[in-house]
Amino acid sequence: MARKILVLGAGKSTSYLLDFFLDNSVSQNLHLTIGDLYPNNIAKDIVNHPHCNIMTLNIMENESRSKAIQSADIVVSMLPVRLHTKVAQDCLQFKKHLVTASYISDAIRKLDPEVRESNLVFMNEIGLDPGIDHMSAMEVIDRIRNKGGKMILFESFTGGLVAPENDTNLWNYKFTWNPRNVVVAGQGGTAKFIQEGTYKYIPYHKLFRRTEFLDIEGYGKFEGYANRDSLWYREAYGLQDVLTLYRGTMRRVGFSRAWNIFVQLGMTDDSYQIENSQGMSYRQFVNLFLPYSPTDSIELKLRHYLKIDQDDIMWEKLEELDLFSATKTITRANATPAQALQQILEESWTLNDNEKDMIVMYHKFGYELEGKKKQLDANMVVLGENRTHTAMAKTVGLPVAMATLNILNGKITSPGVQIPITKEVYGPILTELENHGIKFNEFQALYLGYNPDSVAS
Amino acid sequence: MARKILVLGAGKSTSYLLDFFLDNSVSQNLHLTIGDLYPNNIAKDIVNHPHCNIMTLNIMENESRSKAIQSADIVVSMLPVRLHTKVAQDCLQFKKHLVTASYISDAIRKLDPEVRESNLVFMNEIGLDPGIDHMSAMEVIDRIRNKGGKMILFESFTGGLVAPENDTNLWNYKFTWNPRNVVVAGQGGTAKFIQEGTYKYIPYHKLFRRTEFLDIEGYGKFEGYANRDSLWYREAYGLQDVLTLYRGTMRRVGFSRAWNIFVQLGMTDDSYQIENSQGMSYRQFVNLFLPYSPTDSIELKLRHYLKIDQDDIMWEKLEELDLFSATKTITRANATPAQALQQILEESWTLNDNEKDMIVMYHKFGYELEGKKKQLDANMVVLGENRTHTAMAKTVGLPVAMATLNILNGKITSPGVQIPITKEVYGPILTELENHGIKFNEFQALYLGYNPDSVAS
Repeated sequence: MARKILVLGAGKSTSYLLDFFLDNSVSQNLHLTIGDLYPNNIAKDIVNHPHCNIMTLNIMENESRSKAIQSADIVVSMLPVRLHTKVAQDCLQFKKHLVTASYISDAIRKLDPEVRESNLVFMNEIGLDPGIDHMSAMEVIDRIRNKGGKMILFESFTGGLVAPENDTNLWNYKFTWNPRNVVVAGQGGTAKFIQEGTYKYIPYHKLFRRTEFLDIEGYGKFEGYANRDSLWYREAYGLQDVLTLYRGTMRRVGFSRAWNIFVQLGMTDDSYQIENSQGMSYRQFVNLFLPYSPTDSIELKLRHYLKIDQDDIMWEKLEELDLFSATKTITRANATPAQALQQILEESWTLNDNEKDMIVMYHKFGYELEGKKKQLDANMVVLGENRTHTAMAKTVGLPVAMATLNILNGKITSPGVQIPITKEVYGPILTELENHGIKFNEFQALYLGYNPDSVAS
Repeated sequence: MARKILVLGAGKSTSYLLDFFLDNSVSQNLHLTIGDLYPNNIAKDIVNHPHCNIMTLNIMENESRSKAIQSADIVVSMLPVRLHTKVAQDCLQFKKHLVTASYISDAIRKLDPEVRESNLVFMNEIGLDPGIDHMSAMEVIDRIRNKGGKMILFESFTGGLVAPENDTNLWNYKFTWNPRNVVVAGQGGTAKFIQEGTYKYIPYHKLFRRTEFLDIEGYGKFEGYANRDSLWYREAYGLQDVLTLYRGTMRRVGFSRAWNIFVQLGMTDDSYQIENSQGMSYRQFVNLFLPYSPTDSIELKLRHYLKIDQDDIMWEKLEELDLFSATKTITRANATPAQALQQILEESWTLNDNEKDMIVMYHKFGYELEGKKKQLDANMVVLGENRTHTAMAKTVGLPVAMATLNILNGKITSPGVQIPITKEVYGPILTELENHGIKFNEFQALYLGYNPDSVAS
């Protein structure tokens, strides 16, 4: 009898996930059920696949959700994180394994004792970021430790960008996933990390001015800004004694400096509504954040307020967005500044059907081995195929799919609510990802840390 | 039989309030009961006054609170705003009038129908700001309207500062009320106001760079930065059609520009704890917010980060606080940045026993009368006598005391949960405040608005 996989949510990032299951459906004896609120959006070749059936499913309806989960062997939830709790509770009740690409919520973490007792695997954070970052980092960290090395620095950066061949605007950026998350990125708390043993804190309004540069051979220069809380990873990765711990987001060089204009103006604020937003011109929108003047232009007021020089390329970036248009208007009523800005950006930054995205990841591992300080850098670049088969969908979906199969096949057995940081989990998946072109290039670097005086060799 | 006034909370700002009741206790036939959690702090001349008795009262103990309220004729609550709700509920139950200097909370606003039905007066926001600002503004606005004028601009600023004779530091500032409120001022929401018919929004990280200057004859120049929400006053003051509406906080010139350094660094953040704060030097505290460097000094890193010129007086202001001291340390464990900064500031900015504070208030009223645009400015300066009898205590306490007496004497009769914006309330109190030296100087100004082209005359 076929093993039954239930996939909840067939949104944008599930193309590779579904293909993987169906490509393996015969050899692995799989039957796939896809439950989605709007199943009409699912591609025809999937809908018509003999090993697949589709159901309209409202995850908030307890009866139909429970029934679907009860009749599966394993559940994959690609739903928004807030919808995972009820799914996880059902999985526990009906003794089904669960796989998600989302951060573990407190509600799900609490289930751990019962999940262990039931000998179930609830695998979370096994997409791209979180996911591939955990696995690739732990693989190197374990390798360093096995050689007797002691970790002293870990930095990790991920970015969802546009492929070089379609990198055609001044921002070197297009939306390749949820635009809203990009607009509000960095809000909701001061960025915290450790540098050479010292805690460092960056408030949101300085976040995009504290970047560092990163090079990837064949792809040029990138920049990284700090994620909200790097300290969490001390515990998860066993890096309590590390001197430097930093997690960041990658962009092309110059993005952050220009984005900072929106931050400084207050345009990324999502905490209040503009009551007269509907029909407001982009130009009027900008003026909300500038001092009043009866005579001076909005352009000059903005240049003066943020001290933008006449010949600064940042200015061209704003003009490229039609930010000063008196005719283009905000369509949404009672929009927050962030929602209005999102509309403006989506008009310029949306990927066309034939355009490709790009995922980049960059790790730095500093360690001490036999009295010497060393550094290993590892980076990964994945290019998308088209707007459906994106690098984002590939890097999120494949690890989820592989973990699901490995649980079904008894290759992942340790029970509990977990993330992929054990060799049992990451070992086979990283190997299999390489076969799909998702691989890291490693190279030994000089250990620079942040103390040039103590450079090795 | 004496009329019984119950005063709940005998904290710092109650000296004038209690004196007023006791000074009038014979002529007005008053008996005062003071309920406080720590009554030992109450001055001896009050404790020993024949018309006064003191009780230890924990406002959270329902029985003793209810009993105290039940035996009073009117209740004055000088407690923190979060403790008002239970007091108000008791007052409603036992049919007692209530007076507070606090903003009306939603919980208390909800009581309005029942308060009206019971023919009770619950007077709120009748201290300084809110309080004297409401009364003095509405008195002028009503006067302008009675002459047939139409309001087009209202700006109002208040500041709690140090008296000129004790204005001895580079910041021209000392704490004259709750230091914590000063450190976190402006947080908790974007500042919103209207300027010449256009909404304007200022995010917190720009708030202290968008000041305007104000002159008070005999006292020199001040500056004002925007309060959080000026729009609320449209409804309350009946200013729905006004073109400009702005409420702000007054400081001496240069304060805001220097304070902005703390804001930019992230030192005023109260949302997270520094886990190793205890014993940390001021210098190390500053370094938490600066990029790491193995060689550069904290001073140079800070100058470079915030682009502070060599000869900028802002720098001397930081040094005056001993901000770069390697020996002075933060005493609190797990302090938030705001708590650590507060400690540093309190060491420099605390008023000595013999020093005096100063309250300043500045209103601008723009209006159209007989086809002409006009402007009336009104300002008030009140100086403290000493550290107990402060200008703050006087301007907060006297309106509260006067309103209490006027309610007892049947001069304020309109029932309901209210603020002092009706002539019935503000008329007699403003007159009486003048007798205590709390008065506004008015002068006709050119209507400037923010459109120099349309200046009258």
